[in-house]
Amino acid sequence: MSKNDTSPPFRIALAGLGVVGGGVAKLLHRNRDLIAARAGRAIVITDIAARDQAKAMGMLAEHSLDPSRPPRYWSDATEMVARADIDGVIEVIGGAGGIALAVAEQTLRRGLPFVTANKALLATHGVALAQLAEQHHTAIGCEAAVAGGIPIIKALREGLVANRITSVIGILNGTCNYILSAMRSRGIDFPEILKEAQNLGYAESDPSFDIDGTDSAHKLCLLAAMAFGMAPNLNALAVEGIRNLTKLDCQYAEELGFRLKLLGLAERAAPGGASDDGISLRVLPALVPENMPIASVDGVLNAVLVRGDEVGMSFYQGRGAGAEPTASAVLSDVVDFARLGLVNGGLESARPLFGVRVAELNHPPIIPPQDYVGAWYLRLTVRDQPGVIADIASALRDHGVSLETVTQHRHHPGESVPVVLTTHPCREGQMRGVVTAVSALPAMTAKPQLLRILGDA
Amino acid sequence: MSKNDTSPPFRIALAGLGVVGGGVAKLLHRNRDLIAARAGRAIVITDIAARDQAKAMGMLAEHSLDPSRPPRYWSDATEMVARADIDGVIEVIGGAGGIALAVAEQTLRRGLPFVTANKALLATHGVALAQLAEQHHTAIGCEAAVAGGIPIIKALREGLVANRITSVIGILNGTCNYILSAMRSRGIDFPEILKEAQNLGYAESDPSFDIDGTDSAHKLCLLAAMAFGMAPNLNALAVEGIRNLTKLDCQYAEELGFRLKLLGLAERAAPGGASDDGISLRVLPALVPENMPIASVDGVLNAVLVRGDEVGMSFYQGRGAGAEPTASAVLSDVVDFARLGLVNGGLESARPLFGVRVAELNHPPIIPPQDYVGAWYLRLTVRDQPGVIADIASALRDHGVSLETVTQHRHHPGESVPVVLTTHPCREGQMRGVVTAVSALPAMTAKPQLLRILGDA
Repeated sequence: MSKNDTSPPFRIALAGLGVVGGGVAKLLHRNRDLIAARAGRAIVITDIAARDQAKAMGMLAEHSLDPSRPPRYWSDATEMVARADIDGVIEVIGGAGGIALAVAEQTLRRGLPFVTANKALLATHGVALAQLAEQHHTAIGCEAAVAGGIPIIKALREGLVANRITSVIGILNGTCNYILSAMRSRGIDFPEILKEAQNLGYAESDPSFDIDGTDSAHKLCLLAAMAFGMAPNLNALAVEGIRNLTKLDCQYAEELGFRLKLLGLAERAAPGGASDDGISLRVLPALVPENMPIASVDGVLNAVLVRGDEVGMSFYQGRGAGAEPTASAVLSDVVDFARLGLVNGGLESARPLFGVRVAELNHPPIIPPQDYVGAWYLRLTVRDQPGVIADIASALRDHGVSLETVTQHRHHPGESVPVVLTTHPCREGQMRGVVTAVSALPAMTAKPQLLRILGDA
Repeated sequence: MSKNDTSPPFRIALAGLGVVGGGVAKLLHRNRDLIAARAGRAIVITDIAARDQAKAMGMLAEHSLDPSRPPRYWSDATEMVARADIDGVIEVIGGAGGIALAVAEQTLRRGLPFVTANKALLATHGVALAQLAEQHHTAIGCEAAVAGGIPIIKALREGLVANRITSVIGILNGTCNYILSAMRSRGIDFPEILKEAQNLGYAESDPSFDIDGTDSAHKLCLLAAMAFGMAPNLNALAVEGIRNLTKLDCQYAEELGFRLKLLGLAERAAPGGASDDGISLRVLPALVPENMPIASVDGVLNAVLVRGDEVGMSFYQGRGAGAEPTASAVLSDVVDFARLGLVNGGLESARPLFGVRVAELNHPPIIPPQDYVGAWYLRLTVRDQPGVIADIASALRDHGVSLETVTQHRHHPGESVPVVLTTHPCREGQMRGVVTAVSALPAMTAKPQLLRILGDA
């Protein structure tokens, strides 16, 4: 007799039944036999909390959950989590606090494992929740919080566990990557593609959470915490979005052998930086050398490039958000906990949320943006008049910046013309000085565009 | 007080101290604090078996293991595993049977977790060892057996656990990928590059294990077993290597928008195939569309493309063989078991070797090569004389094969000339029929080259 015939089912309470919650219920139903065989026991949603009972039950019926064993409905998620006879909780309500936080706390206080896709919650309250999990000998699963279609949390916390991680670089927001891919391939400017992405459902009607880099920042924060064993610290992140990028930048990037991507960058001791053990945490658009695998990641896909001291570079690519990859990731955590739950006290052996226990989290110094050392792309828009290039060259010289390439295409005399410079590595502070200096030149007809060039080392 | 101050160390016996064994000892020493924090306890090699004691002790000294606590030396690995006071065993002796098998059996019979990089052992004796692990409530770790630099076993068995896997496609042998990359980028033919790879240490002096596809076959066998929950079956695999590929094929592939790669392919119900639930298992050189991420994987790297029914496509790339990635993977398994071992009976909750218990392994029908349906590349070498193309076209028509493209470059009249055809999807059996028919044509001056074109769907 196989184990899952004899082991009791793993009973789940599902808090939230929106797109992701519905996806979880559907997937768990469709692949229930397969999942049971792999988990060593059946996994059953016994309790559900959602705002609208009729809608919730309708959705469950639509996803053809076993009608002979309907889950118990709760209107109050915290009450459900406090009282239901369950073995674990999935939270897919969302929000950095509020009900989601209350559900998390209540779950952990009961000593039950907590599975969530809620990056905002963990980026904000992760340390307190990790502490609570330790105190109550239970665990938190968050594979779905970052790039659901890629088991990157598992890769960082488990697969690469023997490595000192030196950098994590990710395309973490599908909306931004869709927009940038389309700007490049179709030569259309940002506002037009944004409108299209909104129509296609790839961007929200208020897109700022995605395009200003906040979503990427939450995800990077969690990846960095796990990679470096540090407390997530949203305030330590310098965040830039993609609003100011133009199709011109995409075109020049391509001409120079790069792709323009919005990246989350978590790097130990920025190359050439002053500090030797600091961490650089950034979300920013950057030029990626086209021969790096991350350069070819187009459309709504996510990707992560990890460097470890033993393993070297490893690269991961897959779907990011959306009901299906998120549901897949949620259930990978659930199966982990269902298996650990087969053994008395087994959850004790689950990974700590950030890879190490809270008492052992590092507090590495954060390298301020101006101290980051790298190569740069600077696009200037100038009126073509005598002495302009000389003035620009002087500004670079005055700030100790060494040019690598200059690109200026043929144009009509007297017109404004883009001049694109790339530099050898220097401090961001130096480049900011250059930007201030050249902005004051009378020939400058538009705001300069300064972008980082990612090293391929 | 943190857990790893109070938990007993996890004591490892290391069987074998060659390149990989030395790498494990070195990595465990270098990152010991980090690994201890993440494992929740110290991990210590307390016992070592190797043929030559002086050499072993020299190597350990060189890797600067703590000289105050030297591991105990055993000349007989099976005796060590039977008698040493340990919590787990790492086997890096190698070989599909012999001492490695005896060490595995002895370890599992003692109820201890067994970690190995030995793909040949598991592809051959995996089911019996998995059974033994179940009987003795312990576990087998083999992340290092396939693509050590990529946590692909963890991705398949854990990260994608909620998915019905539909295909696994891998570049699993760095030697072959190095050779094919160089043939393409430098336009050099196989024998010359092989010699170079041997000089660089990328290929063995007897290279057949790599270049004839055997190594890839072992790895694919394990990946397929985990993806589909089936017993590994080396006999079910149709294996072709890269010996017969020429730089001409690399050049034509590129001209047609493909890259030539040696792939391991495990696919459910080959596209358009007769069977609806069979599995196709192949190692073979194939033309990969250049827009697929796996096409850009060059040099000695490994890569795996997985398709799941919920998650869609996910892609993994990293280093394959070599001491460092293998040591990293070995220690990821060790940390898994060290954590599970924190709890009494915790190893019970470890994953079964092939994802499900032996009693629940599937026995899917294997689709024979001739029934595989796909598109094809056929390179013919013909004497340019009247009627040749008509004869070839007749052979295709007679076997019901529909052409997609024909390429014949300018040449001197009367010379032998390559004619390269690509087809629309058809059964491999049809194409073999075409090859037999055209081989009999008097104008054919060399053996036809038939290669699969990988679909990008």
